[in-house]
Amino acid sequence: MSGYFITFEGVEGAGKTSILHSVGTKLQELGYDVVTTREPGGIDIAEKIRDIILNPTHTAMDGRTEALLYAAARRQHLVEKVLPLLEKGKVILCDRFIDSSLAYQGYARDLGMDEVFTINQFAIQNAMPDLTLLFDIEPSKGLERIAANKDRERNRLDLEKIAFHEKVYEAYQILVKQFPERIKVINADQTKEKVESDSLSLITHFLNTIN
Amino acid sequence: MSGYFITFEGVEGAGKTSILHSVGTKLQELGYDVVTTREPGGIDIAEKIRDIILNPTHTAMDGRTEALLYAAARRQHLVEKVLPLLEKGKVILCDRFIDSSLAYQGYARDLGMDEVFTINQFAIQNAMPDLTLLFDIEPSKGLERIAANKDRERNRLDLEKIAFHEKVYEAYQILVKQFPERIKVINADQTKEKVESDSLSLITHFLNTIN
Repeated sequence: MSGYFITFEGVEGAGKTSILHSVGTKLQELGYDVVTTREPGGIDIAEKIRDIILNPTHTAMDGRTEALLYAAARRQHLVEKVLPLLEKGKVILCDRFIDSSLAYQGYARDLGMDEVFTINQFAIQNAMPDLTLLFDIEPSKGLERIAANKDRERNRLDLEKIAFHEKVYEAYQILVKQFPERIKVINADQTKEKVESDSLSLITHFLNTIN
Repeated sequence: MSGYFITFEGVEGAGKTSILHSVGTKLQELGYDVVTTREPGGIDIAEKIRDIILNPTHTAMDGRTEALLYAAARRQHLVEKVLPLLEKGKVILCDRFIDSSLAYQGYARDLGMDEVFTINQFAIQNAMPDLTLLFDIEPSKGLERIAANKDRERNRLDLEKIAFHEKVYEAYQILVKQFPERIKVINADQTKEKVESDSLSLITHFLNTIN
């Protein structure tokens, strides 16, 4: 593997998706060969799985079904898109990856982080991210941002109660302690410009140090 | 759980689906409260997952993605349909269950039966079938039957080469040795009437002995 696999994580409304795209553009301007992608989705089969997961009418969906669907979409996206691009030496910025499953299904849905890690190991084998940016913001503030953004499409997870998002937040704090080398925290409760420049310097520092 | 969960297994063209329906009718005539169902599918979310798995255009689908999708469909079908019906005391006849994943993905696709068992344990927890009928026929004969049946819809698994189906067959023989109490072999290379009566007596014997 000659490329770098960088994932973006955080609660809903942390701003990670928009930062991912602007940081991607900036990195490209700096000469890095960047590809941006997202989970669940990114390729045809995984986008179809995404549609099943996020369909707001699927209220009967069991937590374990959801965790297995995320792992399936993750696997397909990884082998069909991420791994081939890493072999080509690209810097990949991916919106959500394994930590989302550990936080959302493992912790917030109470399935157990270890159990969810086990099915994800089956899915990704040893393809853990090289670096993960955690966009840190109080869940209530994240949800306020979403409420203020009229253009944003509402999905099944946005409909969860605040207590669920608080648990996701807690889970990310646990993960930072568990993977301190890999997961770096970005204060997402700042202006978009500041969050973007913090993210950019973190990534360029990582890429310069590792090379 | 006051009901009974009976699964039907075998290579393609073993005739299990048609036997399942005729045996279901016979059992009902004998006074049993029977529900027939199938995997992957049986309920809305699982049928949508089934469509992704069996879509013949999805040639890029990775074996691990497939295994995770089957486990997801299994989970949802189990919690939404099978478990509530078992609680109501029904006799459930289900076309394929965990053994199919162990044979097709674990063994024939070489992912490892133990690894596939692990993700399925996550999916079904302890809900193993009470009884499993294995419809035993040489894979080449099974495929001849499929070829002769012009009405049968072709799916992605029918397009696999004969060597794949031979491996599925081998895997079922391993499973019979591993679970001799649960899995009973039916000779499927007989007339439909004989296969049906063998299946019926096996099931009624089981239900009479266990009660």
